[in-house]
Formats: sequence, C-alpha cells, structure tokens
Amino acid sequence: MQGLYFDELSVGQRAEVTRVVGAADIEAFAEVSGDTNPVHLDEAYARTTTFGGRIAHGMLAAAYISAVLGTRLPGPGAIYLSQSLRFRRPVKIGDPVTAIVTVKALDAGKGHATLETICQVNGKTVVDGEALIMVPRRDG
Amino acid sequence: MQGLYFDELSVGQRAEVTRVVGAADIEAFAEVSGDTNPVHLDEAYARTTTFGGRIAHGMLAAAYISAVLGTRLPGPGAIYLSQSLRFRRPVKIGDPVTAIVTVKALDAGKGHATLETICQVNGKTVVDGEALIMVPRRDG
Repeated sequence: MQGLYFDELSVGQRAEVTRVVGAADIEAFAEVSGDTNPVHLDEAYARTTTFGGRIAHGMLAAAYISAVLGTRLPGPGAIYLSQSLRFRRPVKIGDPVTAIVTVKALDAGKGHATLETICQVNGKTVVDGEALIMVPRRDG
Repeated sequence: MQGLYFDELSVGQRAEVTRVVGAADIEAFAEVSGDTNPVHLDEAYARTTTFGGRIAHGMLAAAYISAVLGTRLPGPGAIYLSQSLRFRRPVKIGDPVTAIVTVKALDAGKGHATLETICQVNGKTVVDGEALIMVPRRDG
C-alpha cells in the first residue's frame, strides 16, 4: 500500500482528482464536521446571502486536496505537515471540483516536499494554497 | 440565522466545540472526501506505520475549526477567506478534539477578522493555524 518514495518525486510532477459536489456530499460533510452553517444547508437562507444559493464548505474542497495527497501523489506513507488554503470563489451544488497537486520543491535533507494545491471548477480556481509533507525514503 | 456582526467582535473573544472522533467519523470523512489512505481505514496497515494505528484525517480536525467559525464565532454570514493549518500531532480514534477559535486581530476598514485556530486533545495541540474571515457589518 506504500505510495511514492521521496526519490520517485520530481518538481513539476502532478496528480488530480475530480469530484462533482452533490447536495448529499454537503449534507454528509455538515454531519461529520458539525458545520451546520445554513449557507451550506438551507436554500432559502442561502438565497439571501451574497452567494445567491447554497455553497459547499470550503473545507470540503480542501478535503479533496487531502484525497490527492493521500491516494495519488505521493499516496500512503507520507506525513501531512501543513496546508495553506485561500478560498477564492464559492463552490456550488453540481460543480465539478478538480483538486490538482503539483510538486513545487523538494528538500532531500529533510525528506520534505512542498506542493502547490489548487481546486478548480471549469478552469477557474476556487481554492489555492500549498502543502508541506514528509515523504518516506526507500530505505525506511 | 445571522451570526455575530463585525462590531460584536473583540480581540480575545473565544469559542470552542469538542467532538470525539469515532471510527465511523473517519469512515464518513473518507467517503465524502475520497481520501481512502489506509492509514485512516486499515488498522493492520496503520499498525506498520510510525503512528502505530489508525489516525483521523488532518482535514477532519480542520473541519471542526470550520464548524466553530460557521456556527459559533462569528457564525452564519461571515465569509471564509483563508486558513493555515499545521498538523502537529496525530488524532487517534476515541480522541476528544476541541477546536478553539480566538479573535486575534480586527481590521475595521476591510471588515476582516484574523482568528487563531487550534485543535487540542487532552490539552495538547494537534492542529494550529490562523483563519482570515470577512464579517458582515450591521448595516449590511
């Protein structure tokens, strides 16, 4: 189940996943997180806000970044050290969110990788930021 | 359903929520995020890792921060602009995670609030970072 080792990473390497955000996903995320802000759950209230309708939790899009890191690049075995997130645009119900992770810098001494982490909807950035992870070496 | 207005915030103001992370929460988070990294789901695999057993997704603890912001301080009406997260220690199944949000700085010109955001388990910090939000003014 081991993901990529440090020596298998190179700057510019990239992986992505796309998920369409359904109302059920937002409801499940509200349940598991306890974030029951009505802008996510109550269409009548959400229509009165600047968003004009229900939006996904920003952290749900962020969770898709975690999914790319945890399953694709580098995958199991890496340790998540930090993540920055800028919530640039709202994600609406039905939006196809593509979480894209790109290796930006590698620190062989520390075994650290810095990754650019972006979520896009139809080519527009909805979330951006950076992840720092520790990646296992082949010799353990 | 309106949360706090900008003029109701003051530096040092604080709110928190505590949730005990169950195996079912981790499984629900894996499902909704797509992050099926076996360190979260497969006890036999997780025992072979440095963590010695299954751990929660870091983003699940982060989602509890979102819950405090979205439901308590300041609550509905605020706009999440950015969040930084440092994953300091693993969260294990059964851990009571307290997400604590404290107002750190207020920018009346922009209507922005900077909040210290920490998750603790039994008094030890597992996640820390900062949130930046835009808070509505009373006059809209």
